[in-house]
Amino acid sequence: MHHLHREKLFSLFDDNQSGAVYIQGAETMYRYGTDYEFPFRQESNFWYLTGANEAECSLILDLKTEEYHLFVPERDAQYAVWHGYVKTKEQYQEQYKPDHLHYSNEILTVLKSLNPEVVYCLNDEQAEFVEDLNRSFTVDTDTLVDALTYCRVIKTEWELDQMREACRVNDEAYIEVMKAIKPGMHEYEIKAIFNEVQLRNGLLQDAYNGIFASGVNASILHYVENKDQINDGDLFLMDAGFECNGYAADYTRTFPANGKFTEIQAGIYQCVLNAHTEVIESIRPGVKMEDLHLMAARIMMGGLKKLGIVKGEIDDIMENNIFALFFPHGLGHFLGLDTHDVGGYPKGVERIDRPGIKFLRARRELQAGMVITIEPGIYFVPAVLEPAMEDPEKAKFLDVEKVKSLLGFGGIRIEDDIAVTEDGYENLTSVPKEISEIEALMAE
Amino acid sequence: MHHLHREKLFSLFDDNQSGAVYIQGAETMYRYGTDYEFPFRQESNFWYLTGANEAECSLILDLKTEEYHLFVPERDAQYAVWHGYVKTKEQYQEQYKPDHLHYSNEILTVLKSLNPEVVYCLNDEQAEFVEDLNRSFTVDTDTLVDALTYCRVIKTEWELDQMREACRVNDEAYIEVMKAIKPGMHEYEIKAIFNEVQLRNGLLQDAYNGIFASGVNASILHYVENKDQINDGDLFLMDAGFECNGYAADYTRTFPANGKFTEIQAGIYQCVLNAHTEVIESIRPGVKMEDLHLMAARIMMGGLKKLGIVKGEIDDIMENNIFALFFPHGLGHFLGLDTHDVGGYPKGVERIDRPGIKFLRARRELQAGMVITIEPGIYFVPAVLEPAMEDPEKAKFLDVEKVKSLLGFGGIRIEDDIAVTEDGYENLTSVPKEISEIEALMAE
Repeated sequence: MHHLHREKLFSLFDDNQSGAVYIQGAETMYRYGTDYEFPFRQESNFWYLTGANEAECSLILDLKTEEYHLFVPERDAQYAVWHGYVKTKEQYQEQYKPDHLHYSNEILTVLKSLNPEVVYCLNDEQAEFVEDLNRSFTVDTDTLVDALTYCRVIKTEWELDQMREACRVNDEAYIEVMKAIKPGMHEYEIKAIFNEVQLRNGLLQDAYNGIFASGVNASILHYVENKDQINDGDLFLMDAGFECNGYAADYTRTFPANGKFTEIQAGIYQCVLNAHTEVIESIRPGVKMEDLHLMAARIMMGGLKKLGIVKGEIDDIMENNIFALFFPHGLGHFLGLDTHDVGGYPKGVERIDRPGIKFLRARRELQAGMVITIEPGIYFVPAVLEPAMEDPEKAKFLDVEKVKSLLGFGGIRIEDDIAVTEDGYENLTSVPKEISEIEALMAE
Repeated sequence: MHHLHREKLFSLFDDNQSGAVYIQGAETMYRYGTDYEFPFRQESNFWYLTGANEAECSLILDLKTEEYHLFVPERDAQYAVWHGYVKTKEQYQEQYKPDHLHYSNEILTVLKSLNPEVVYCLNDEQAEFVEDLNRSFTVDTDTLVDALTYCRVIKTEWELDQMREACRVNDEAYIEVMKAIKPGMHEYEIKAIFNEVQLRNGLLQDAYNGIFASGVNASILHYVENKDQINDGDLFLMDAGFECNGYAADYTRTFPANGKFTEIQAGIYQCVLNAHTEVIESIRPGVKMEDLHLMAARIMMGGLKKLGIVKGEIDDIMENNIFALFFPHGLGHFLGLDTHDVGGYPKGVERIDRPGIKFLRARRELQAGMVITIEPGIYFVPAVLEPAMEDPEKAKFLDVEKVKSLLGFGGIRIEDDIAVTEDGYENLTSVPKEISEIEALMAE
């Protein structure tokens, strides 16, 4: 299906122009001068255009003829012993169906023979290679990334299918964890269960380094230590997902380790869930991510006000960015071949420099075919709240005693993966999130 | 216990010399221009000297006073929100017990104030940083790696304990897999079970990208695809291990997926097992790895001759490197903070350029405290055997028909982790390897 991606890219360039796209695929990565090899994972743009998840490949797209040249490494018998059978050119041809297949040592020859006026590269590093040519062409390192971003941000049906499969397995893994967790276990035992379900289903690559955080650890947004024992009474926050053919799933659920929410846990959970649900119900083409972010923040502040944790008028709370003290990250981001997928900031749209939304990764109008995460959260982070309680301008919106009593609470985040459709949205995530559903599942 | 490692290193340098060791610890690694973060794993030399498995640290060892300066990054509140509580200097001091603790921005100031005549660095890249100083000292990038290798190749009792724990968990994982495997499962399902046991035991970092190979895939030495379905009648080769506090376990077992060896499988397995067992029984200080390698090769050739797969006099078979057609890798390697640990080739000992042993990583006399793997194997690799059968000088030692019939056989490897002791060895691996033991375990 990757030929559709190449067609999309070709369509963005002027017809018949004398230009070529050159992209070098990923090489195997090693750890600090050792032979520890990270599992190979193709660079996302290259994977998008070729479907080839193999090391040391590269491509040239001839913009004049719209022909696709794939370059593959030539291997010797020694390689076969260590890494597998050496594919013939016919086997590569059959698998990836380029218009022209070459060995990698022919890249410069092919480029010379195409004799383009411009060569489009992803970045300066990749441009260096073609600049070694005694050349007549210019090198452009701006246009290609923007063009690929434009293509990748709107998913094809085949891409959505990969994400649906990543989500199907992620659903299964979340549900298995929620049934198995017990106080006394360690965070890493939960990761063990979660990863086992993914691998068992053939998903071998995590989409990101997962977060398995009990109790107060949930207030560390990127907590990846996973070493602590889970206490009775802890909430457990799990934020993890794997890739299917490169496409990520990325969920978060927060649930009580012992299967039963306390009153205050349920209260704060419901604030986050209300924001999560109402935001998702608002998703349709034309909506702006920053509006959804502020909507989520407002709903959560309303909830915290009812719980007596914040005080004052909601308009004042919003105006004074009090929401950012509890919700210090973005509402969500694009999702695809990268977990924080391309497309968040189209050219000409600068990041908003306002507390609480400067980390918002996706800031543009939603369109059908985009896939985003929706992940509001409330956290009690001492490093954020302690200075705020010392600052009279902020402290006046806080019930300082209540906030202090919650500094060990941790945090709650609820995250689903949402595909925008022509008339609304498709929620790719099916893991219980209502309090009653969670408690029922965990009681099984 | 890492202070013992520093003392060992200090002892190798002349007393009272005006010199300093500078080592920069690892930084977090990311994937190809994305924010996909590889799980942090400290650079092995830095971990060895400090015990600090944290990003962005560095150290200076003052060779004159034998004082240890540790440099840690200074974090802000934003860091605390995303990555955890910011440790105070007192907390770092308590945890790592340096003689002097500094923030990283003080490295050059400290180095200037020590005013050493020589600064020892691991490599040119690390030297670059100190060379930025308007300096009076020389920079030496040769000595330190050799000195650290000399230290690391002989393990302390504490280091052996880490390896014993990595092996204890690895034993459990192997046994769990051998009980669970069934024809019809996929290779990745076996990896799922294996990894689950490691993570459940708190070992979160694999020591290398594991090999889970059924049938013919076992003839690919570094097979890491793990995608195929396991057939009834297949042998399954598993080569995997995790780290405990940085120290690796690295085993291989080969067993029948259905629990019962066929006659030819048992015959070839026994050739490898005999070599494996006899080599291990010969281990003691003073023995040379290359002698053990040739001993293993000779035993395996004797076995293959009895099976009628090779023919001729064993001396001729060895002389003509026929063993390398079936055993194309080294007998073993040092094991420690790296899976292919330092120490294989001490200065002045060149790699032997002879087929079958040029990949031997460990080539020196064994000494008490060294830890090595012993991993003989027999493989039927078409890319190696097909040309050999065309070459009359090699083909005359082969029963060509028998070899042809075995080209889909795959391969067998049996690997244990062995600590050399004063009077012999300690086998750190306890996973059944006798045919009868394996069949009994798998019938449970």
